[in-house]
Parts: sequence; C-alpha cells; structure tokens
Amino acid sequence: MGMMGTGRFVDLICKKREGIPLQKEEIRTMIRNYTEGRIPDYQMSALLMAICFRGMNDDELTELTLAMRDSGEVLDLSAIPGIKVDKHSTGGVGDKTTLIIGPIVAACGVPVAKMSGRGLGFTGGTLDKLESIPGFRTDLSGEEFFSCVQKNGVSVIGQTADLAPADKLLYALRDVTGTVESIPLIAASVMSKKLAAGSDKILLDVTTGSGAFIKELERSRELAGRMAAIGNSAGKETVAIITSMDEPLGYAVGNALEVREVIGMLQGEGPDDLREVCLTLAGMMISMGRTDASFDAGCAMAEDALASGAAYKKFREMVSSQGGNLSCIDSPDKLPQAEMCYEFAAPSEGYLYAIDTEGIGIAAGLLGAGRETKESKIDAGAGLIMRKKTGVYVKKGEILATLYAADEEHLMRAREHLTSCFTIREEAPEPKKLIVDIIR
Amino acid sequence: MGMMGTGRFVDLICKKREGIPLQKEEIRTMIRNYTEGRIPDYQMSALLMAICFRGMNDDELTELTLAMRDSGEVLDLSAIPGIKVDKHSTGGVGDKTTLIIGPIVAACGVPVAKMSGRGLGFTGGTLDKLESIPGFRTDLSGEEFFSCVQKNGVSVIGQTADLAPADKLLYALRDVTGTVESIPLIAASVMSKKLAAGSDKILLDVTTGSGAFIKELERSRELAGRMAAIGNSAGKETVAIITSMDEPLGYAVGNALEVREVIGMLQGEGPDDLREVCLTLAGMMISMGRTDASFDAGCAMAEDALASGAAYKKFREMVSSQGGNLSCIDSPDKLPQAEMCYEFAAPSEGYLYAIDTEGIGIAAGLLGAGRETKESKIDAGAGLIMRKKTGVYVKKGEILATLYAADEEHLMRAREHLTSCFTIREEAPEPKKLIVDIIR
Repeated sequence: MGMMGTGRFVDLICKKREGIPLQKEEIRTMIRNYTEGRIPDYQMSALLMAICFRGMNDDELTELTLAMRDSGEVLDLSAIPGIKVDKHSTGGVGDKTTLIIGPIVAACGVPVAKMSGRGLGFTGGTLDKLESIPGFRTDLSGEEFFSCVQKNGVSVIGQTADLAPADKLLYALRDVTGTVESIPLIAASVMSKKLAAGSDKILLDVTTGSGAFIKELERSRELAGRMAAIGNSAGKETVAIITSMDEPLGYAVGNALEVREVIGMLQGEGPDDLREVCLTLAGMMISMGRTDASFDAGCAMAEDALASGAAYKKFREMVSSQGGNLSCIDSPDKLPQAEMCYEFAAPSEGYLYAIDTEGIGIAAGLLGAGRETKESKIDAGAGLIMRKKTGVYVKKGEILATLYAADEEHLMRAREHLTSCFTIREEAPEPKKLIVDIIR
Repeated sequence: MGMMGTGRFVDLICKKREGIPLQKEEIRTMIRNYTEGRIPDYQMSALLMAICFRGMNDDELTELTLAMRDSGEVLDLSAIPGIKVDKHSTGGVGDKTTLIIGPIVAACGVPVAKMSGRGLGFTGGTLDKLESIPGFRTDLSGEEFFSCVQKNGVSVIGQTADLAPADKLLYALRDVTGTVESIPLIAASVMSKKLAAGSDKILLDVTTGSGAFIKELERSRELAGRMAAIGNSAGKETVAIITSMDEPLGYAVGNALEVREVIGMLQGEGPDDLREVCLTLAGMMISMGRTDASFDAGCAMAEDALASGAAYKKFREMVSSQGGNLSCIDSPDKLPQAEMCYEFAAPSEGYLYAIDTEGIGIAAGLLGAGRETKESKIDAGAGLIMRKKTGVYVKKGEILATLYAADEEHLMRAREHLTSCFTIREEAPEPKKLIVDIIR
C-alpha cells in the first residue's frame, strides 16, 4: 500500500468532503499512488465527487496539475530556437483555427511546434482534419518533427510522448462517474498536458456558449481564470481568450469540408467570424512569442501574413513536409468528398434567432464526421456546410445547411436531429461579441 | 450490463450531483444491479458521495431502504403470538440496555425475539456481552429461537438470515470511501435491517453526545426523525428516543463487567442513569406491544417488573434456555475476570466537567474488550469500571476508573489513552437531561 494505502486515503477523502484544503504532499502522494495502481478507483471517484462539491483552492489546484504533469514525460523543446507558444482550445463546432493560425504565426517568425489530440467529441479533432488531406502524416518521429519546425517554422503532429498518464487515468474515471464537469478538474486536466508539452508560453482559447463544453459565460470565465493562474504559477506565461461558440465557427463542419474552408481563408476569402477569431488568437501568439511586438502589432502582422499570401505559403510547406498531397490543396475538389448531399431548408420565415451548436456537432457526427468510440473510423468527406449565420432573416424554404454523407441513411438521421437545432423568431437576436474577454 | 449498465448509471450520478431527486424505479434498479454486481464500486462510491452532499428526500430514502430490505430475506415472526417490538440502539459506550430491557419487557407480557449484530466498534456488542456468560449460545437455530421466545417470552441471538445484503455491500464501500457520515445513508442502513428482521413495531434508541456515533444533538435529532419516518412510511409504527451518551451508561464498560452490572440492576441495585434509560425504553416497548398500556403505564409496569424480581427471573430463564451457566449469574465472581488491574487517579482537584466518552470506549478496546478487525478475539474479562459520574467534585488522586486487562502492556496503553479523556474544572457543568427527546 505504500506511504498512503487505502487505510489513510479514506482520511483524505473525509478531509476534502469536510472542505479542508489538501496539503501539497498529500496531493503529490495521491497522484503518484493512483498512477501506480495503489489507490483503487472506488476511492478516487469518491474524492473526485467531493472535489466537484468543494472545489480546490489555487495552491491545491496548481499542485494537482504539477503532480499530473510529472506523472509522465515532460518534453524539452529547447533545441528549437525562439519562444515556443502552445495553443489550446476547449473545443467547439467548426473549430479549424489551428490549421490557419499555425501558418500565420510561423510566417511571422514565431515557431509553432504543436502536438494535438484526437477529437473525442462529435466531430473530428485537428489531427483528423489534417489527415483528411491525402498523404498527410501526423505520426512524425521526434526527429522529423523538430526538423520540420526548424525548416518551415511550423509542424502539427499527434502526441508522441507519454504525456500526463495520470490525466488519462483520471479522465477515464471521471467520464464514467459523473465527475467531468468540475472547473478545477477540467483546468488540471488541460494544463497538466500543456505544461508537459514543453512550450514556453501558453495561449488558451476558452469557448463559451451553446457549442462549447462549458456553456455558461460565468463558468467559462472561471475556467479561463483558473487555467491562466495555474500556468502563470507554474512559471509559464499563460493568456486565455474567451471566444463565443454560440454558432459554428465559419461555415464548414466536418474534416475535409473544414480543410477547404481553411484553404479559402488562407487565400484571402472566408467567413468574417473565423477570420476575426484567427487573427486575434494569432496576434496574441505572435505578441507572446516576439518580445518586440505588442498585441496590436501582433494582430497587424497576422493580417499582413494572411493578405500577402505568406501564411498560405507556410501552410503549403507544412502539408508538403508532412507528406500531404499538394495538388489537393491547389485543387480542393480533389479532397475527399461525400457521395450524397441534402439541403436542409428553413421550416418557417423569420430571424435565425439561435442555433443549438452542440446539436450541429451531433448532426455532423451522425453524418459520419466524428467517432463514437476510439475505434470508430471517420468519414473525411462527411459533414455539413452552414448557409446562414444567426441574426439573418430567412424565408420559409431557404437553405439553412447542406448535409454531406456517404449514404441516405446517414443523411436522414442527421436531418431528423437538425430539426430541433434552429430557432426562428419574429424578433432579431441581440448581436453578440465574438471575442468576449482576454484573461491574463 | 442489464437494464442499467455503466452507460446509463453515470446519468443517475449526474442527476444526484445536480440535486435532482431520483425516481423510485431508478433506486430499485440501482440496488438490484449493485447487489448483483452489475454496477462497479467506483460508480457507486461517486453516487454515495453525491448523496453525502445532496441528501435524499423522504420518498427517495424510503424507497432506498425498502430496496435494501428486499435485497435479501425478510423474516416472518408471525408464528410468535403478540405484537413483536424490535429495539435498536445507534450505539454507545457501556450500553448494556438490551440485556436489561429484554427480560423486563418479556416479564410484562410483550414477546422479545431479537437478533443482534456483533460489535464492530471499540467495545463488544450485545452478542459479545451475552457470550461472556460461560456456555451462552447466540447461534440458536430458527426453531430453537422460536421455541425459546414461546417458552420464556425472550431470546436474543445473532443474525441467522441473510438480512439486507445490499446494506453489507454498501456499508463496506462507505467505510473506505469517506461516505459513512451521511444521515440518510445511516438511516437507510439501520432501517433496512430492522424492516427485514420481521418485527411489527420498532423502537430506536438514538444516542447523542461524545460517546455516540453522531455527536451533535441536531444531527441526532435529524437521524431519529428520518429513521422514524422510514419505519412509519413502511407501515411499521416506529418511535425514536434520543438519549444522552455524554458519559458511559452506568459504570461498567467491557463484556463480563457489564453483565455483572446487568445482574446487579436486575436485582434492584445499579446506577441511576442506566436505570432511567432502561425503564424509559422498556416502558415505551411495553406500551407499543400492549394495546392496553399507555407510555406512563408501560414505565410503571417496567418498574414493577424490576422491583418484583420478575425481570431477573426472565433473565435467568433466558440464560438457562440458551445454555448459559446459571451459577455464574448467581455468583457473578465466576464470570470471566481479568488478571491485572490499575487504578486511574484524578490528576487534579475540581469538578469532573466532561468525559470524552468515545475515548473511554477506545481505552476499553485497548484493554482487550473490543475487536480491531472482524477476526480479533475479545477478552471477555477486560474493560473498565468508571468510579465517578460527571458533575461530581473530585480530589487530586481520587480514583476515576479501574482498568482491567490480561497484562501490563494492555493496561499501560489504555492508561496512556485515558489521560486526555477527563476534563476537570473549577466550575461545575450544567446538568444534562438523559432522555433528550421522544420522536414518533
């Protein structure tokens, strides 16, 4: 049973249940013993539930995060010159920002050495989006990864190292014990991996609204603040930008569909909301990575990189270096495409008042764009293209979204799900800010 | 995974975490699936912790208790004529009331067919006390048990049936997950067994104070109220009497030592506090078991049974019928006795202001009177005799307690523990009521 077997761990559970803060050494020992299998799941789940109710103070939370970070390998990116800024999003629907921001930031001289996770939600993650480009490899060796960053200034790959294994164990347990939705536990989970990933600074995109994991603004703000506090306590400058996820970002939802939108954006076209979010995040990353650039200067540099085609050039270099077929970038029609499509029309006339964005994500998953289990295969061509943004006036029968899938069955189940996702009213909705807040 | 596998049970955990009451059918299915091993401990412990924070309403609690009752055998005592009243104490130090009340109540014509549990605390339980009488058998067959009750009107044995196995599983899990101290979970645990034990009515002795499991009066009151509500909802008249456990009940703490005190009490001697509690509880049981007796009449009948020697006669009949050596009853010096003793003296002069009663129980355990694990063997002769009640004025060096144990080592560790158990002050403590409240 080691230093803290089942006999003593129950005292720790009682302590937290009573609202007494845990000591640093207690937290360290707990994470070590749990990772090494010396604390049974039935005790850890009770403690996690007590944390859901009692929370954790800043000292406890930082120590928990550091202990989780130290449960596995902590990467060393110091061989790559410059200040490395990592970027993490708490997730959303149609969130393809990494594919746009990486090339912009690299074009502005800040190296981007990014490890991404796979999407476990309804839609694919960054890796799934990149892999919809035929030939694109996200499984580079450490050596290939470093050489790509050194050559092009940007590379995005899957997690190679055994980063924060304590988080994997805890997340799997939280998932089945109703203890996912605790702000401090979410913060520790995200930050333990970010702190292990070896960057010098961290930019967090904390989404809020109907398509975000955390839907209430106050809770999103709390999460942003707690994550920033952990990062800064751990000695890594951390900034959190709260962005609205009350409708899909851009128009495309689904892997190859989103890559097409990315290519358009990098060529100077593309939706305003996606553009604004990407330029803000890129501007912040540039200002964090370059000591000579303010946030405003970073934003201006980002805009220039987009307008001049420098970012698009970086994107092509990244795709080419990681084995992707460049002809698919130059002719996006060669990207995977679904066989069947269906036009989803407005059932009535009025203002498009609100979109159940999580519902759109679920519909994309039903079309084949996500994976239900870790083993599921993604249909790269499936998904949907939104045709209207909230606030516009639509007539009955106007197309709200075009659905893409491999067969009729997928189309039909997504279509059925979509019927409850759009709210159309006589009155127009209040316009919402896209960039809600910046928290340092 | 049956009707409610891990996939759906997590929704139930989230529901309780959010404070939404569970439905009857959800609770039934949960207890059935948990008892049959279809819900893993790590999910159940998370739910139990959520219940610690959110509580349970009366409907939920009654259903939980009934589902736990129905997880095993539910006894049928209808072959025994008369109204059977069960009695349960939430535990205390020096609590030998069952040995006195059983014979009193039987002498007043109310049958006592009682199954007791073993003591899992610091000191022995009712069965351990009875078994300190040489030859006394608590493992009667069902047939022997019924015949003893029919012949003598009283029998006390160990649990023969598989009563409320769900409670056994849940209690073992609560014990190691910091979820013991939840009023509704305690109430369900006690009442599931009482409802399965086959009596017609239930009298609960809910202790409160420094020697009770629940120390705060408000919480004791809450526990009493919730247990009474469960019993009455389940169709069995249930009364709870809250009694003070701020010092050991009577003077003796330890198995054979307590039997001696019981014999004295049944012969008309014995401490006032023990007498008052026993007569109150017995009076209530008599009034519940006899339609012709009010509570006051029951108390008067109990007093008569004690004074006339009728109760003592019943006690001798019970001991004799269950194989106990009557010569030990007639000459209590023949009961097991410890080899060594030690007089614990007052370290200063003043009023005996307070006694850490749980501490006294722990000291008795250190002397050998309890069992640390289920397998430990009890030393029937070990324990202590308190020499002073709180509120008296003591001189420095006056004896506060006499300790009995098999050897010097046991004496010394108990003596060390006792040093912090007595509070002596210049001022006298407020006198406390022994019978705090009666809740129906």
